[in-house]
Amino acid sequence: MLTINNQNYICSLDYAVSLIKGKWKAVIICHLNDQSYRFLELQRKLPGISEKVLTEKLRELESDALVERVSYPEIPPHVEYRLTPLGLRLFTVLDLLQLWGDGYIDDQKVLK
Amino acid sequence: MLTINNQNYICSLDYAVSLIKGKWKAVIICHLNDQSYRFLELQRKLPGISEKVLTEKLRELESDALVERVSYPEIPPHVEYRLTPLGLRLFTVLDLLQLWGDGYIDDQKVLK
Repeated sequence: MLTINNQNYICSLDYAVSLIKGKWKAVIICHLNDQSYRFLELQRKLPGISEKVLTEKLRELESDALVERVSYPEIPPHVEYRLTPLGLRLFTVLDLLQLWGDGYIDDQKVLK
Repeated sequence: MLTINNQNYICSLDYAVSLIKGKWKAVIICHLNDQSYRFLELQRKLPGISEKVLTEKLRELESDALVERVSYPEIPPHVEYRLTPLGLRLFTVLDLLQLWGDGYIDDQKVLK
């Protein structure tokens, strides 16, 4: 048993799964894999996400050291989001999970 | 956008994450990677899980074709749970996610 930030986890896998839980975080990490994005650019890539939810998810990913917010000293201010090295390493695993999901959908013919 | 069993998913990764959501499923898949287990053997490997929750999680994993229930025609009846080929392929990804989690905990020194 692990106790991290006053939460109990069965093991490091349970903890890792908790870091990507919910609808958006894994997908955000995959979109950020190849480049940094401004908030609005990222929002356009995630159809259906509200400004409030994207703000919340980016803050959680920042707090978990998976995404970093980079401010460029320009006028007007310019902020981009990108993966940290830890986030990039997680992306390589999520990329395999996505490939597995493609194969699963194909195998199960669950797509309707 | 994918629609599977009347649920909307952003992509196959979103769907794959939904298959392992919650506290137990990913951990159950990892425990079953190397051998099949009887219900009580599996329960003993998952400290804190109730009979009701383990029954529910195994049924969901069976329904998603990740785990199969094998009945042996013996007296008394003898049932074991094991991964399907799809479940085994998912295990290989979850094993990498667990390794990533170990590295993350070490890097972030979040363990308390």
